[in-house]
Amino acid sequence: MTAAKFIVIEGLEGAGKSTAIAICQQFLEQHKVDFINVREPGGTPIAEALRTIVKDNHVEQIASETELLLMYAARSQLLHNVIRPALAKGQWVLGDRHDLSSQAYQGGGREIAATTLDSLANIVLKGLKPDLTIYLDIEPAVGLARAKGRGELDRIEQQALSFFERTRARYLELANNDERIKTVNAGQSMELVHHDIIAVLEQFVKSNP
Amino acid sequence: MTAAKFIVIEGLEGAGKSTAIAICQQFLEQHKVDFINVREPGGTPIAEALRTIVKDNHVEQIASETELLLMYAARSQLLHNVIRPALAKGQWVLGDRHDLSSQAYQGGGREIAATTLDSLANIVLKGLKPDLTIYLDIEPAVGLARAKGRGELDRIEQQALSFFERTRARYLELANNDERIKTVNAGQSMELVHHDIIAVLEQFVKSNP
Repeated sequence: MTAAKFIVIEGLEGAGKSTAIAICQQFLEQHKVDFINVREPGGTPIAEALRTIVKDNHVEQIASETELLLMYAARSQLLHNVIRPALAKGQWVLGDRHDLSSQAYQGGGREIAATTLDSLANIVLKGLKPDLTIYLDIEPAVGLARAKGRGELDRIEQQALSFFERTRARYLELANNDERIKTVNAGQSMELVHHDIIAVLEQFVKSNP
Repeated sequence: MTAAKFIVIEGLEGAGKSTAIAICQQFLEQHKVDFINVREPGGTPIAEALRTIVKDNHVEQIASETELLLMYAARSQLLHNVIRPALAKGQWVLGDRHDLSSQAYQGGGREIAATTLDSLANIVLKGLKPDLTIYLDIEPAVGLARAKGRGELDRIEQQALSFFERTRARYLELANNDERIKTVNAGQSMELVHHDIIAVLEQFVKSNP
């Protein structure tokens, strides 16, 4: 495997992203791949400060456009200062969420126009796309019940179920139209989810020798 | 004067914005106008947090696109939560900077493409424009010397002189192409600047009876 790759894990709250990331990490280590972990929003001091603003509960209402701009501001910072430099020196990047989250949550969930998302993606991504995205698909009610079990919900996790249903629908639609996004059924047993993630990674490595 | 108006003061560091705002305030009070003051970036708790991020010096470099997105995120928040509600209930708004600053500093100074600025303006402003902008024109070297006299310079004030020259050139270009932007020579004596600002305000009130 020559060129450094950008792999992203995506999914709703409680879909099992942390476990999936641990599986990917182990897989990359076994394949002696030099990689770094990043998460969005966040991953640089400024981007982490923006993450706090976006996730915290405020007295003040955050307008949908503000939320979207903050997500892209954090992404811009992470791309400039971490992701692009890592890829340039041959390090793989394993991301906990990336642009697909904005498309699903702000585009699907918040119903922000696709043209708005496209303009921001053009400004910030400049054509960079993950080489592989593993989308962990879960029914929102099931995922949220799991997330609730972990503790208090943040501002975004407190949205109505219909918000997450729109988000999931957008995730599925986008995954079905992009061969670089692989959907894994995260409602299965842990063993089967593990098996499916490894199968996706094996296939990815095989087709990127 | 019926409909509430949105008046903005613009200019480089050290152009005399604070004095100009004080003059406008006094003028509006004398005309028994109900108004609020806002400043950009800032004016809501979240927007003020973004102001701090944008103006502080960080170990991490802030990418030009990140800076631009943060300016528009703060503007979006201020428009949603303060400016639009005030105008809707008949209060005038007196702003210390607005969108013209992004066009001049990020567009002119940072040389970000006009198409990028236009996309963000479309997303955030949704057609809202100040009814009157008073642009205080000053030579960058003169303005910066005044700003330095006030104390330590923030991250943006520390840019090279050429940055402020590009910013000023863009301000002048935009002012010359928009009849709602009035240029006041801020290099004159305080008395003359005061006189010119009052003249602009008198003319504005006369043409908006």
